[in-house]
Amino acid sequence: MTVTAGSSTTPGTRRPLDLGPAVALASKESGHQIPLAPEFVSPDDFAPLEVVYDFGRVRREDIEAGPRSIWRYKRLLPVPSDIETIPSTDPGCTRLVRADSLARELGVRRLWVKDDTGNPTHSFKDRVVAVALAAAREFGFRVLACPSTGNLANAVAAAAARAGWDSVVLVPSTLERAKVLTTAVYDGTLIAVDGNYDDVNRLATELAAEHEDWAFVNVNVRPYYGEGSKTLGFEVAEQLGWRLPEQIVVPIASGSQLTKVDRAFREFGELGLVEPTPYRVFGAQANGCSPVASAFKAGLDVVQPVRPETIARSLAIGAPADGPYVLDTVRRTGGAIEDVTDQEIVEGIRLLARTEGIFTETAGGVTVATAKKLIESGQLDPDAETVLLITGDGLKTLDAISDHVGPKATVPPTAQAVHEVLGQAGS
Amino acid sequence: MTVTAGSSTTPGTRRPLDLGPAVALASKESGHQIPLAPEFVSPDDFAPLEVVYDFGRVRREDIEAGPRSIWRYKRLLPVPSDIETIPSTDPGCTRLVRADSLARELGVRRLWVKDDTGNPTHSFKDRVVAVALAAAREFGFRVLACPSTGNLANAVAAAAARAGWDSVVLVPSTLERAKVLTTAVYDGTLIAVDGNYDDVNRLATELAAEHEDWAFVNVNVRPYYGEGSKTLGFEVAEQLGWRLPEQIVVPIASGSQLTKVDRAFREFGELGLVEPTPYRVFGAQANGCSPVASAFKAGLDVVQPVRPETIARSLAIGAPADGPYVLDTVRRTGGAIEDVTDQEIVEGIRLLARTEGIFTETAGGVTVATAKKLIESGQLDPDAETVLLITGDGLKTLDAISDHVGPKATVPPTAQAVHEVLGQAGS
Ligand SMILES: Cc1ncc(COP(=O)(O)O)c(C=O)c1O
Ligand SMILES: Cc1ncc(COP(=O)(O)O)c(C=O)c1O
Repeated sequence: MTVTAGSSTTPGTRRPLDLGPAVALASKESGHQIPLAPEFVSPDDFAPLEVVYDFGRVRREDIEAGPRSIWRYKRLLPVPSDIETIPSTDPGCTRLVRADSLARELGVRRLWVKDDTGNPTHSFKDRVVAVALAAAREFGFRVLACPSTGNLANAVAAAAARAGWDSVVLVPSTLERAKVLTTAVYDGTLIAVDGNYDDVNRLATELAAEHEDWAFVNVNVRPYYGEGSKTLGFEVAEQLGWRLPEQIVVPIASGSQLTKVDRAFREFGELGLVEPTPYRVFGAQANGCSPVASAFKAGLDVVQPVRPETIARSLAIGAPADGPYVLDTVRRTGGAIEDVTDQEIVEGIRLLARTEGIFTETAGGVTVATAKKLIESGQLDPDAETVLLITGDGLKTLDAISDHVGPKATVPPTAQAVHEVLGQAGS
Repeated sequence: MTVTAGSSTTPGTRRPLDLGPAVALASKESGHQIPLAPEFVSPDDFAPLEVVYDFGRVRREDIEAGPRSIWRYKRLLPVPSDIETIPSTDPGCTRLVRADSLARELGVRRLWVKDDTGNPTHSFKDRVVAVALAAAREFGFRVLACPSTGNLANAVAAAAARAGWDSVVLVPSTLERAKVLTTAVYDGTLIAVDGNYDDVNRLATELAAEHEDWAFVNVNVRPYYGEGSKTLGFEVAEQLGWRLPEQIVVPIASGSQLTKVDRAFREFGELGLVEPTPYRVFGAQANGCSPVASAFKAGLDVVQPVRPETIARSLAIGAPADGPYVLDTVRRTGGAIEDVTDQEIVEGIRLLARTEGIFTETAGGVTVATAKKLIESGQLDPDAETVLLITGDGLKTLDAISDHVGPKATVPPTAQAVHEVLGQAGS
């Protein structure tokens, strides 16, 4: 199968390209536009491309009448107008949890947790993959591919299975067992690569150039993929009753998600769907992989790549593609970026579990622990309403906690033995 | 803390007991009623107790205007009328997935998968625990306890954490690592017991008698707990557009869920919320623990206990409390009960993953494989609309598939190496 990049119809007998409100791609630097195509670098200035829209009028009622998935926001995404009728994993519409117990422990007034573990493969990556797949289908692709730190692998393999597509997934050979098996079970082609994520990513970019019929969700169709993260921002605003929070804490790997949540808040404001009230965006990294936090603290505009060494493997991107845009966003909104130790990550996981009954993976531990640190250092205002994005599931990173939690005891099946464990012998 | 069983107000300064439409408990055999209380055995005939309601009028609009959780059905559950305002894990409203690819592979016309992996702790047990906790709170309890085959442990520990309660969870010491850690992380008291589930269950019954201030969700508050499973049936009917399916396949451990799904369909019919069209209920077991399937096939009314030996550990209850009621339900509706081998369970897991992008645990593998077997033997009508209940998550039982799936290869980070794996060297 071949794909005619840049044409506005797709190969064969297919209908004309329908990417909903999307009208073009534009350089993130110069704004120079090209037609919608499976491209990710501007031919003008080699900057990343992003989607340009003509939204028209979008009303709250249109969204509220939509399905309970990210497709309720289809008027704000580069997807066909009948997207909800096509089989997909239908991610999104996860819970926004009022977190009063955690708020008390952290000493903040009004705290919410966006619990994205409820997605089909239990991370926010189902959102970006669903949008990438929808766009890729319009361009005539039938193979879905990616390099991944794990969650993306799960999401791509599952979404391709559901769509009846082949998938090719590349992961670091050191990946957590849970993420490996949860990819392989969907029966696509999973390849483990000796190297870290940045090596795998370079390899994928090379392969994407050779295999024009593979849609690498985060390479050649990355502009569409990234838009899926906007739905996290849209949902938070809708779930708060059509208003923006004052502060939001977002984990950073490539940095895409953080910039797209900001974009979502701005679009909602511009479209009159919410009051455009001020908000501050905060970034969270593990200090074993904190290139963006380091640049932020040093006052730099560019991000110096690092070699990751952290238990937060889903965030272990040493050369983050959207690093500079993260710095822009955080500085423009008056936020900050912090990083936390592996031990703080584990404490973050346990704190969220103990207070709110939500079990997150290491990435969520990074977010909780960073929020704690930002509060303690006075960078996050304890009186302002705050949202934490919990983007992945604890079941995928059990090793992070396995030395820290477990049964209180193993006993024979007698009441007496249980009483002894509980220190209530004889009661 | 002491609890006055059978009184209609709760201890201390609390308001009068509010369990919504629930008005009494009744013996499942004689129908003899007693006041609402944390009791599970009828003093009249020692039969299990079930909740008796006075529903009044319940309209579709009332339900549709409710929250996106099981609390939308609060008018049909033994929970207080303001339940949605009390912090809970808010389970339910999981996806009903139209499964055309799986339908094609199985040779059936119209198939749906109820994907309960989207619940807070990724199994249907969040539903029963949420209802048990709500009722237990009304009775003045502040400790949530259970014996568990794993999923219930996760759900109890999480729900207790969210509610700010203590929890005491008893599990067989052979439990899957994922289920152990996913319980322990919530920081309740987890005790591993040397023995199988039936041993643990006996121990719990003994402890429940001694600790009147512990709400054992599936022992002393079991009548309320069981009602939570009705919400699976309610949701299926609402999601089908307020109508009943013709066939439904349900996994069996204690058998509670199966009987409650049937009860949900009947209640919806009696209340005029759906047309009371005929439906058939099918039961699924692993053949390493198939006491109910055996009784069904032998034409018996009683269930002979067995010693479980199966990879479907969440279904490994050798002495199922609701076995006889399962037999009644299945026979009354014209269904059947089948059991499948461990190998068929693994194939069932992989089939669902490959066709629909849904990764279920061994219990879901039992359901899929049993459906396949029932179709092949002509017991399940391939032309009738069918729903499969997928009640738990693959991430919790990775060992079941770890010898069967994995990366296609581990390669150095070069395009050449990837091409060789794909059999496309030089392309
Ligand atoms: C759980 C989780 N959270 C957050 C991220 C960060 O995403 P981004 O690359 O958009 O910064 C990732 C990336 O893999 C992830 O897996
Ligand atoms: C995933 C799963 N499905 C189904 C069941 C069966 O539930 P029941 O005991 O109501 O028959 C269980 C019980 O633990 C379970 O964990």
